[in-house]
Amino acid sequence: MSIETTIAYLREHAGENLGRLRELLRVPSVSTDPGRAADCRRAAEFLVDYMRGMGLSAEVAETAGHPSAVGRWEQAGPDAPTILLYGHYDVQPAEPLELWQVDPFAGEVRDIDAEGRRVPGGVLIARGAADNKGQHMAMLAGVEAHLATAGRLPVNLKAVIEGEEEIGSRHLPAMIEARKADLACDAVLLADSYTHPAGAPAICYSARGLTYATITLSGPSQDIHSGVYGGVVTNPANALARLLAGLHDARGRVTLAGFYDGVPEVTAQQMAEIEALGITESDLAGEAGVERFAGGEQGVHFLVRRWFRPTCDVNGLSGGYQGPGSKTIIPASAMAKVSCRLVGAQDPARVSAALEAYMQANCPVGLKATVAHEAGARPYLADRSQPAFGAMADAIHAVTGRDASWIGGGGTLPILAEFKRILGAESVFIGVARADSHLHGPNEQCNVADLQAGAEVSARFWERLGGGGK
Amino acid sequence: MSIETTIAYLREHAGENLGRLRELLRVPSVSTDPGRAADCRRAAEFLVDYMRGMGLSAEVAETAGHPSAVGRWEQAGPDAPTILLYGHYDVQPAEPLELWQVDPFAGEVRDIDAEGRRVPGGVLIARGAADNKGQHMAMLAGVEAHLATAGRLPVNLKAVIEGEEEIGSRHLPAMIEARKADLACDAVLLADSYTHPAGAPAICYSARGLTYATITLSGPSQDIHSGVYGGVVTNPANALARLLAGLHDARGRVTLAGFYDGVPEVTAQQMAEIEALGITESDLAGEAGVERFAGGEQGVHFLVRRWFRPTCDVNGLSGGYQGPGSKTIIPASAMAKVSCRLVGAQDPARVSAALEAYMQANCPVGLKATVAHEAGARPYLADRSQPAFGAMADAIHAVTGRDASWIGGGGTLPILAEFKRILGAESVFIGVARADSHLHGPNEQCNVADLQAGAEVSARFWERLGGGGK
Repeated sequence: MSIETTIAYLREHAGENLGRLRELLRVPSVSTDPGRAADCRRAAEFLVDYMRGMGLSAEVAETAGHPSAVGRWEQAGPDAPTILLYGHYDVQPAEPLELWQVDPFAGEVRDIDAEGRRVPGGVLIARGAADNKGQHMAMLAGVEAHLATAGRLPVNLKAVIEGEEEIGSRHLPAMIEARKADLACDAVLLADSYTHPAGAPAICYSARGLTYATITLSGPSQDIHSGVYGGVVTNPANALARLLAGLHDARGRVTLAGFYDGVPEVTAQQMAEIEALGITESDLAGEAGVERFAGGEQGVHFLVRRWFRPTCDVNGLSGGYQGPGSKTIIPASAMAKVSCRLVGAQDPARVSAALEAYMQANCPVGLKATVAHEAGARPYLADRSQPAFGAMADAIHAVTGRDASWIGGGGTLPILAEFKRILGAESVFIGVARADSHLHGPNEQCNVADLQAGAEVSARFWERLGGGGK
Repeated sequence: MSIETTIAYLREHAGENLGRLRELLRVPSVSTDPGRAADCRRAAEFLVDYMRGMGLSAEVAETAGHPSAVGRWEQAGPDAPTILLYGHYDVQPAEPLELWQVDPFAGEVRDIDAEGRRVPGGVLIARGAADNKGQHMAMLAGVEAHLATAGRLPVNLKAVIEGEEEIGSRHLPAMIEARKADLACDAVLLADSYTHPAGAPAICYSARGLTYATITLSGPSQDIHSGVYGGVVTNPANALARLLAGLHDARGRVTLAGFYDGVPEVTAQQMAEIEALGITESDLAGEAGVERFAGGEQGVHFLVRRWFRPTCDVNGLSGGYQGPGSKTIIPASAMAKVSCRLVGAQDPARVSAALEAYMQANCPVGLKATVAHEAGARPYLADRSQPAFGAMADAIHAVTGRDASWIGGGGTLPILAEFKRILGAESVFIGVARADSHLHGPNEQCNVADLQAGAEVSARFWERLGGGGK
């Protein structure tokens, strides 16, 4: 059986796959809304039925929250690679509803997208069209096509479609831990990103980690008169400014002891891939509402700073008088929210400890520093020597005729580090939706043709990974 | 006529003077309360009647707000000095009323003070007992004693008792400007401070000036994701911290260009007077709710830093997320309230301009700095070579048997600089109430004996200044 037969099958059944996705989009599986718990379960059951129908063994896997849909097909033999397909059926709330051009839970297909552009093949406008129902259903469609045309998959497959990604995947790590042996795999496939810059699906191979702290400097027992006490009492707000300023040197590098331990240098290959993206600074700066990307480390390419370098940002400041006009006080205390984005092998606990040690060591006499740790997450950087990465790049090229874009992620996706920690598996993180899909916003949308391309990428990925189709 | 006759008269009429003060204390002349405007006018009329009764020509002087009581006696001849007695009949609101041990507007005299200490001679507990009805009535009692016993004063006297001190003396400068020739004088006498550290009235010969600005650094058009944009977008909160930190050097000196222009060195005489006060750092630090006075310029005596050195304090900070837990954003903007206390010949407008220039010059690329000037006031440092200072020191020594304390003021009293600017007159600023008088707070109090001492200081001051009594 040739892969072309499988692709032909996918094209013949495109309408059927779209119809099935639209059915799932009509289930308002909003995980944050307790009133939608039954809808979440209904979505999990829908996915279990779909997986069973294509030949997987599947079940609704209970957690302490919304259940997951878990499926498996392991008849490719012990020498074939095993892939865990991850996705999530839960969605963000659709509110504010008045900003939608359609019913967000109708699964509507239109000829023009939310921006009024004509889209050949149509565009789905619905909550979950891209994030993530559209994308994981495209991956599953590629699985189904193999099973329907060849009666088998080129790889062993496990699938976990969870129901709590939009509320922090709070029960997923425990579920994976509990089923660790059961979910053992060589790599994880996630389609939950977007194409970059446009067209060919991008492979995102990193995510930054995080450490987040609330820092408070306390001085006088209450706000005191800045005339009577100015010049004698140590001012917590001035001192906090000095401490925060000291977090960076003049070249924008973070000064915390050992901060750069474990930060890998960007390789020549990574730089070449970044250059190949053809993304200009001005394009992206406009998105952020700024004129240029003047922040971060001096002399470092903006996409390297965005994806592959650690940061230390003040997320919030408060203290003393914040109203209109003047109030002449020395504040009793001053507070800053400070977070670091981490990369490579940086350890959130060590960075957090260094931040606290810095604050304590440099807190002026007369003030008390308290550092409350609010959050932490490990960074993720894929070992791209794993065969799944090459197979995905081949599949993307075969479907789109273009080289895959290799990109990093600036945000934090704790689940990637968790898959690596618990299962020892790398994650192949792709996106088939476009960057203007309005994820989490009104009029979330995904082109039907992009979903079809995603299904074909999926089908070719299994084929390449299983050793065929070269 | 000997001054001792005048003092004896004051002692004989102590009860009468106390009764008159209690009558004035029963007028709730709360200037900030529009509903008390008639009471304010009633207090002004009371004072005009009192001044007329003792032999001054007096009138209610209208302003755009509450009126002043203005009196004069100019029969000492052109060679005698002319003194302007300043005071204010308006008071702070008494609320919260439930914290008072007495009716704040009953003018009650008790044997024990608000702290339960027995006070020989009794203690007045009333709003205005010290600030300022008690103290300016004591000064006027000294005037009245001269007129009653000698039929004349040793000096020419002008008196302005205003009704808007507690709301910023908003119409006083215009009133003085308008009556500039009429109010011409050699020196101003104010009794609106407190004894220091206890016992002998102190002479306060300086007040710090002020410049106050709201500084805003603006970056992205809205708060943006610190993962997606951290390391590329210039963070306004980090940048603000750096700008604020740069306002001081490592030794606590302000770095603004030209900041110390016009700041006088403290003289050996001033240092000797400071040492003579016998005030310890730990006494005052306790009042401020701190362990020690570790702020301000290194290596400078704490009372010099408090009174005679300029400062730059952050009075407030805000920006980004200030709630519990974490929110991973780069704030769209960050704000600081920054004020400088000024001394000597420092010019608030020049310091303000230097602050703005510093912010603009050091604002990082990608951010916009705005500096809004909120307030400004000139510092005041008396020329103590004026005879009125020596006369007051002599009077205090004669009444209390102790050397007067010479102190500075850390706060801002714009009226002192205004008297100098408009009238060219130095201010002799004393206090006869104790430091624990609870000015502006519940249970404001003043010892009857201290008011009597104040009246005697007043009587002896006129005498010394007129050239007698040596």
